[in-house]
Amino acid sequence: MAGFLERLPELPVLAQVEPGEVLAQLPSEPPEQGEPFSAVLEDLERIILPGLTHWNHPRFFAYFPTTASEPGILAEMLIAALNVNAMLWRSSPAGTELEELALGWIRQLLGLPQDWFGHIEDTASTSTLSALAAAREAGAGRRAVLCSEEAHSSVAKACRLLELELRTIPVDDDFRMRVDRLAEELTRGDVCAVVATLGTTSTTSVDPLPEIGPLCKEHGAWLHVDAAYAGSAAVCPEFRWALAGVELADSFIVNAHKWLFTPMDCSCLFTARPDDLRAAFSLVPEYLRTPEDALNLMEYGPALGRRMRALKLWAVLRWYGREGLQNNIRTSVRLAGLVEELVRADDRFELCAPRPFSTICFRLLGTDEANEALLERINSSGTAFLSHTRLKDRYVIRWAIANARTTDEDIRLTWQAIEQAIAELAVGDQSG
Amino acid sequence: MAGFLERLPELPVLAQVEPGEVLAQLPSEPPEQGEPFSAVLEDLERIILPGLTHWNHPRFFAYFPTTASEPGILAEMLIAALNVNAMLWRSSPAGTELEELALGWIRQLLGLPQDWFGHIEDTASTSTLSALAAAREAGAGRRAVLCSEEAHSSVAKACRLLELELRTIPVDDDFRMRVDRLAEELTRGDVCAVVATLGTTSTTSVDPLPEIGPLCKEHGAWLHVDAAYAGSAAVCPEFRWALAGVELADSFIVNAHKWLFTPMDCSCLFTARPDDLRAAFSLVPEYLRTPEDALNLMEYGPALGRRMRALKLWAVLRWYGREGLQNNIRTSVRLAGLVEELVRADDRFELCAPRPFSTICFRLLGTDEANEALLERINSSGTAFLSHTRLKDRYVIRWAIANARTTDEDIRLTWQAIEQAIAELAVGDQSG
Repeated sequence: MAGFLERLPELPVLAQVEPGEVLAQLPSEPPEQGEPFSAVLEDLERIILPGLTHWNHPRFFAYFPTTASEPGILAEMLIAALNVNAMLWRSSPAGTELEELALGWIRQLLGLPQDWFGHIEDTASTSTLSALAAAREAGAGRRAVLCSEEAHSSVAKACRLLELELRTIPVDDDFRMRVDRLAEELTRGDVCAVVATLGTTSTTSVDPLPEIGPLCKEHGAWLHVDAAYAGSAAVCPEFRWALAGVELADSFIVNAHKWLFTPMDCSCLFTARPDDLRAAFSLVPEYLRTPEDALNLMEYGPALGRRMRALKLWAVLRWYGREGLQNNIRTSVRLAGLVEELVRADDRFELCAPRPFSTICFRLLGTDEANEALLERINSSGTAFLSHTRLKDRYVIRWAIANARTTDEDIRLTWQAIEQAIAELAVGDQSG
Repeated sequence: MAGFLERLPELPVLAQVEPGEVLAQLPSEPPEQGEPFSAVLEDLERIILPGLTHWNHPRFFAYFPTTASEPGILAEMLIAALNVNAMLWRSSPAGTELEELALGWIRQLLGLPQDWFGHIEDTASTSTLSALAAAREAGAGRRAVLCSEEAHSSVAKACRLLELELRTIPVDDDFRMRVDRLAEELTRGDVCAVVATLGTTSTTSVDPLPEIGPLCKEHGAWLHVDAAYAGSAAVCPEFRWALAGVELADSFIVNAHKWLFTPMDCSCLFTARPDDLRAAFSLVPEYLRTPEDALNLMEYGPALGRRMRALKLWAVLRWYGREGLQNNIRTSVRLAGLVEELVRADDRFELCAPRPFSTICFRLLGTDEANEALLERINSSGTAFLSHTRLKDRYVIRWAIANARTTDEDIRLTWQAIEQAIAELAVGDQSG
């Protein structure tokens, strides 16, 4: 494992394979007799690793990068060895209480209200689904959900599953929810929930929570705050501004597996209204009744089975400490500043959105096709993996930085790969 | 990790702590500076392990036991080190294709229809939720779901989230869905799905699928088969009878983390109608569009983020091979046979349900209170952990066997603990 992490920077980030290529190399029939684990490791090395896009690579800059830190990886092995199911307090007393404790630490580290109840779901999709299920339950028949047009697709997915009507609110020039339009929509009287995003997926824009919160209170709408990525930045005092107004939220998510160096998956869901969350999910059949009066975490989300994810979060938070987390968040933001400077200094490019944290949206001056071709060329080089979005109806390249192992040298190498891709495509001249 | 597994049999199965006891021993504030991982391991040893109920213990006989086998544990560490998110083919080519491959192996090992599409969800709760979401989508406005009164609570939980009307069908004396009553309910014309259970949670009874399937076809209802536990038994030809009629199912789940020696979580969801599943969940925002025409697994379930669970399933299936899986399933069933014999031979006890697989339902002849007291006494001894259910309105003790490390000696030790608990409670005389 340590060896793999060491040579990871030398591997191509994006898998250099075609669909079906991995499958074709592996036996389609299960073995009759058992094989040693070394056979698995051999195939892993020979077939699987070259067929993977390496999320833990320091030059993975697509979507939102993640980090599986060493303490997180070791803790995952311990979680598997213990194989605890933290569904009931009785089925996992220390698992349940460690989850309370670790979420309490997150509350303190991010400066969240200290009376919020927190627990872990797998992903932001599930956390948002859970929060909106509670909002529907508490909504007295109101069935509309509002979010900005820049909100994450998981909001739409949850609404589809819950059969809630999703209406999107336009954004301002900086991609933040327009509060005047939110206020209008709220007056229709059918809104059970508003989802505000702190750190949208495309540009990491921050919806104006201090204005949104009071409007939600006034209209009795559940305020769900999706801070899956940017919430972690609040570990640093200089980024606390992004959470201003959070005390009026009814629910709040931050993904420790995004920018808190914890392996997938670990989404922290907080709520000021745990009873409403419980009302949406609690269902205790006879075979799960226990004599204790204790916290049974299965009552707060859709899944019954719950891995002991708290162990890895706790291990990671201890290994880094507040200082270590701050240092790493600051490094991501500093490196993003370098990228922003490179883009600004180069008149072949334009910046396409403000950069509040560590994600840069930029494009080549030129056609969408040229930008798409450039991105594909960079990615297929294997040097770095970036992704794209669409802003103001234009194709935009996204460069997101959050992996704890990313260094200045990785930025330099990636910029070099961009230069080279432009040269190869000879798109620089056409568009300059 | 190896050392822990070795001394696991010596640890109490059920945690010997009171609510709050673990929390009270740990600092409630996060550390400012980082700590070495050894500090985590120390607290794990001193505070966490004694506060855990040990699911991987060979005398964990509650709910459904699970096994984190060695290859599964090592694979979990690799999964964390790779930290791949198998949401899109592009984001994880080998992860996506390994998932296809491993699910294909499960199809072959269990004798499921070879044209079914399979993918992995975290738990049976999510798999059933996904299947019923697809059934609702395909149901043309019909909103009722039918299952037996012995079906798992996850069916009710999914129906609550999906706002489907759940109607339960009574069971026969052997706890199997009554087909005459099912036929009656289906004639009401409002049914979008029927959930049949192969291996119910309380008694592991098997609903009569060969009769249920044709009724569902006749009435156009989606047939979802919950074989989360007992499906694995079909690795052995002598238990294939339990899957008779499965070819008419629209969706089918088996949990590899239950009786296929894979660490939590790994629920295999198969469907004969992948397009309907995709219709219920597919939603591709711009930032997730990719140039390839390839399988994107995020389109088949509620979560966007997806750990590379296929790696552990593949590693476990290779390590055991078909023979190893069969041997271990057969051992569980053989040991359950020993328990059944012990119960039958002892006139203080009665068996409360047939035993098709490896779960025994029995009770002391006597009051519910006596049985409850007995169970609490056994569990608090730390020797073994059993759970309970309610059958025909009586409190019944459940002894489920599925851990690959359970031996004859574990059965003997547990029976001894039962004898001793009876002696201590002196309930044997009152009820004999």
